[in-house]
Formats: sequence, C-alpha cells, structure tokens
Amino acid sequence: MNHQKPIVLTGDRPTGPLHLGHYVGSLANRLLLQQTTKQYIMIADVQALTTHFDDPKKVHEHVIDVALDYLAVGIDPNNSTIFIQSMIHELFELTVYFLNLVTVNRLKRNPTVKTEIQQKGYGENVSAGFLMYPVSQAADISFVKATIVPVGEDQLPMIEQTNEIVRAFNRIYNTNVLVECKGIVPEIAGRLPGLDGKAKMSKSLGNAIFLSDEPDLIKEKVMKMYTDPNHIHVKDPGKVEGNVVFTYLDVFDSDKKKVAELKQHYQRGGLGDVVLKKYLIEVLENFLHPIRQRRKQLAQNKDEVMNIVLQGTERTREIAAQTLKEVREVMFLDY
Amino acid sequence: MNHQKPIVLTGDRPTGPLHLGHYVGSLANRLLLQQTTKQYIMIADVQALTTHFDDPKKVHEHVIDVALDYLAVGIDPNNSTIFIQSMIHELFELTVYFLNLVTVNRLKRNPTVKTEIQQKGYGENVSAGFLMYPVSQAADISFVKATIVPVGEDQLPMIEQTNEIVRAFNRIYNTNVLVECKGIVPEIAGRLPGLDGKAKMSKSLGNAIFLSDEPDLIKEKVMKMYTDPNHIHVKDPGKVEGNVVFTYLDVFDSDKKKVAELKQHYQRGGLGDVVLKKYLIEVLENFLHPIRQRRKQLAQNKDEVMNIVLQGTERTREIAAQTLKEVREVMFLDY
Repeated sequence: MNHQKPIVLTGDRPTGPLHLGHYVGSLANRLLLQQTTKQYIMIADVQALTTHFDDPKKVHEHVIDVALDYLAVGIDPNNSTIFIQSMIHELFELTVYFLNLVTVNRLKRNPTVKTEIQQKGYGENVSAGFLMYPVSQAADISFVKATIVPVGEDQLPMIEQTNEIVRAFNRIYNTNVLVECKGIVPEIAGRLPGLDGKAKMSKSLGNAIFLSDEPDLIKEKVMKMYTDPNHIHVKDPGKVEGNVVFTYLDVFDSDKKKVAELKQHYQRGGLGDVVLKKYLIEVLENFLHPIRQRRKQLAQNKDEVMNIVLQGTERTREIAAQTLKEVREVMFLDY
Repeated sequence: MNHQKPIVLTGDRPTGPLHLGHYVGSLANRLLLQQTTKQYIMIADVQALTTHFDDPKKVHEHVIDVALDYLAVGIDPNNSTIFIQSMIHELFELTVYFLNLVTVNRLKRNPTVKTEIQQKGYGENVSAGFLMYPVSQAADISFVKATIVPVGEDQLPMIEQTNEIVRAFNRIYNTNVLVECKGIVPEIAGRLPGLDGKAKMSKSLGNAIFLSDEPDLIKEKVMKMYTDPNHIHVKDPGKVEGNVVFTYLDVFDSDKKKVAELKQHYQRGGLGDVVLKKYLIEVLENFLHPIRQRRKQLAQNKDEVMNIVLQGTERTREIAAQTLKEVREVMFLDY
C-alpha cells in the first residue's frame, strides 16, 4: 500500500445492473483512477435500503450483479478494493456519532436531498433514514480517509456536507483524525441521456441499455431510440442536436471522422434513421461484446466473484477498524 | 439463563453520579426486578453523547461513577447484566436500519422529545442525533428482545415509538424476530422532588443529593432544603404538603408512626425546621451510610468494577450478535 497515492471513495447503490450511463458517468473514470490512486469502490447496500427498505431481497441480488459489472468492465481487484457497505460495521457507528454534529434543518437544506425528496414524492413523509443519508455518506467517505470523491455536479452538496461534518468532528474532538475530501467532477464523465432523449439514463425511467444486455435487446432498444421527430423521410434534413443516436456515437465511436461525416449527411438529408441506428448498433456491440463475454465467463463462477468482493471487504474492514479506533480514542470511548 | 424469565432493559445516561431521585425513580425497582427477571442495565454513553457530544471526557468518567453507584446500592452482577452501550456495536447497525422505518415527522411528534427540545432550548437547531434518539432507544430495547421496560409516565411515548418500529420491522421483513415490549411505570417508584421543592431532582438543576455525597455535604444540603416558607417561628403551625423534608421522610424513614407524629407536631406548631431537618439528616445517613461505604470499598479497585462491567458487556454482545444475525438474515444482508 502506497500512502502517497490519493485515496478515492466511490460506489453504487445495488438497485439494478449497471448501464451505459454508469459507464460514461463513473466506470470509465474509475478505470483511469485505479491506475493512479488507492480506490475503494463501495457496493452501497445500506444506502440502497434507504429507498428500498421494503425490497431487501432485490438489493441482495443486485450486489452480485454490480460486482459482475465492475469486473466485466475492467475494474481490477488488485488495483481497486471492492467492498460491501453493510459488512463494514464501523460505518453504522460513525454515522451515529456524526448525527450529533448536524442539525435536522441543515439536512433539510441539502439541495441534493431536497430534489430527491421532491422527485420521489416523499413530501412530509420522508423517512429519517432517507433524510440522514448524507450523514451516512459522510461516514463512508471519511472512514477510508478519502481525499478524492468523484461526483456528478448535482452531488457536490454532499461533499460540502461531508466536509462540514469532518471539520466539526476534528474541531470538537480536537483532532485531525478525519480528513476533508475534494469532490471531483470527472473531466471524461458526461451524463448520458436515456434512449428517450431524457436527461438521464436510468433503470427506473426504463430508458437504459445495460452492460449485460444481449445483442437482440440492444438492437430493439436502439431501434426505438429518440432521434429527430421532424425527420420523417430519408431525404429530409435532420437535426443532430438532441438526437440521441449522435450523442451515443460521439461517446462510443472512436472513429470521429466517420461520425462527423454522418452528422453532415444527416443534416443535409438522405441519411435514414434506420441506417444510422444500424451503425450505432454495430458500434455499441463492438464496445459491449467483450464486456458481455467477460461478464458471462465471470457469472459461471459467482462464488469466486463473491470471494473477490469479500476479500476486498476484509481489507476495507481493517481500515475501518483502524479509523474507528482513532475516532473512539478522541471521543473517550475506549474502555 | 432461564428463558422463562421476562427480559428487562433499563439504564442511565452517564452524565453524572446517581442521586436519590435515581434511587427512588428506578434503582429501587431494579433491585426488585433482578430477583425475578433477566435484567439488562445499560450505561447509555452513546445516548449521553446526543446531548454531551462536546464533552465526551465527562461522559467517559461518569461511566465508572454510574457503575459504582449500581453496585453500591446492591445491583448484583450475577442477577443483572450491566453493560456499556457504545461497546455493543450491533446497536449502531440496528439504529441505522430502524431509521428507514420512521418518518421525520413522526419523530418530531414524539411528545417526550418535543418537551425536551423545548426544555433544552434547541428549537430549530435540534441535532439529527437528538431527534433520532428514540430510534436508538428502540434498538436498545429490541436487541435484547426486552419485554419489560420500566419507565416514568413521561417516557411512555418512547415505548410506543419502539413498538411501532418493531411492528413495522416484523411486518416489512415478514418475521417475528423482534418482540414488542411493555412500558411498566413501577408501583414503588415515585418522582422525588429536588431540595428546592422543584418537581424533579436533577444534577443540572443543582438540587440533588448524590448517593456518594459525604455526611457534611448532606447536612449542608438538607439544611437548605425547602420547607414551608411561612413557617417562620418554631411555635407557628407549619404546612406538610409540598414540604420537601416530609416528602423525603415519607420515602426514606421506615418508622411511619414517627413520621406521622412529626407531621402532626409540625402542623400544630412547636416543631422547628432545624430539629426536623436534623432528624432527616439522621434518616438519610442511615440509608446512605452503607451505600457510601460499599461505594468507597468498590472505588478502591476500579479496575475490578470495570471488569464486572466489561464482562456484562461481553455477555450482552453475544445476545446482540445473535439478534443481529437474525435481523440480517430477514433483511437479506447475509453475504
């Protein structure tokens, strides 16, 4: 373990298999980060339960799905430590200590949570667990003493909340046990729109292509993809902006010259959606084929995959035990 | 371990040494309960931190104070299990799972918490930790599967909150792993007024006689005790109602006939406060002397006392591990 390397904490809620949006938004960045940092990737089952507490079986099942996706895209367990959140018992403890350092009103003002409460329609019936999840996140980030947390723009308030808690903890307990982190919005990351052209690809919106989708299903999904609704006849000129097919080509086709040509052709007319989509299917298949193959191979021995995750969890536990030892010491909780 | 015995969960926040109010309100009842039940007595340091998070050293110090008080009054570690809350790591985990089963609004409606928020002047700045402490209490009660929780009248809403959570948990996870409890307001318990006649003896109100107070200090405190402000001259008739000296005599003097005589004498006039108070000092000293002596003896070997607590904690941990194993199973958190 090289202590000079920055420590990264990242992860996903296991609420479904990962899709292209995850790849673009975070997985691609993690493949880079694992080269240069000490990266912890958390399968956030406890966080998943804040919204899926009444469907824990699904959360359980998706843990292995997510792990398979990680390994399939090239997360290397020798360079990245994958772990299961609920198995790091110290996280619960740190969360409870942190709850004393935050006011309820501060939590309610968190813009990310505010938006989510609206989106999910929780209103006045928001659960305590949901309102507190930024505190739980602060524990996730600070127990490994992460200095870098890759985030989307919309999650920057979470980082601010974490650092507020870290500063309060260090000030009140007169220590420097915990460290502040920096939220990094990855340069290479973008937000991939859904098939329907909606801002975000998401399982719950039903507009996603999963990393594990079979070729037939990908074809079906791309054929339904949102293009230019006014591009009725092949000969008509079509719009490139907001045309999801081109957005995907921009991201997944390495042949930038070809994409530029297709755009020109489409704009002047004469390039039909079907032809264009068939090309995207080819591009996506080139990208997804090796991932799908690796995933299938790995899925033949799920025990081994789970073993990799459990080993990562074990390594993470050691860090957690060490941090909590330090935390308990400054809080005079060592008996 | 006799599984037929009811399981009791009780305890104190280690925010100071215990006083006569604790004795009357709960310790006396625990001495009875330990004969007939399986009683767990929690030194609630984590709960103490919800109000004393910025003074953890004091909380730490008072853990041993409280343990000394327990043993000095006759809590028998062979019949009662004394344990330290923060060392039962499963409690943090259970608390976090429970947070998903309660709405923030429900917590805000809790009458006990509402009153405390007012009394402590937290107002809009109430910490998340404080608002949630009933959830943490629900974890304390349910992890030992307590069926009886001795409470004051004002704490009955806590029991209702606990049972709501237990029912929600069992319903959502289709189980009967957790059990509901009954809040018992002990018959023998009363609320001892403070020296100043205020409704409640309390360290923070500065109106308490501690179990560990030296005779001189007790004398000083009793001499300042609130009696009848209109009873100026010895020969004047005095009032018995609201006269703290008589309230204490009613509780601590086993010679009921004598107390009745004193009351009559006081009411018809001719019994001075000083004489009366000297008698109370004697009565209290008879009660507190053996407790103080045992406490001093125990305090000579604090390591041994701590050992008793740590052994109790170890036994409690086994229960906690078993309950959490069951909890994780029904929540599909077993990997």
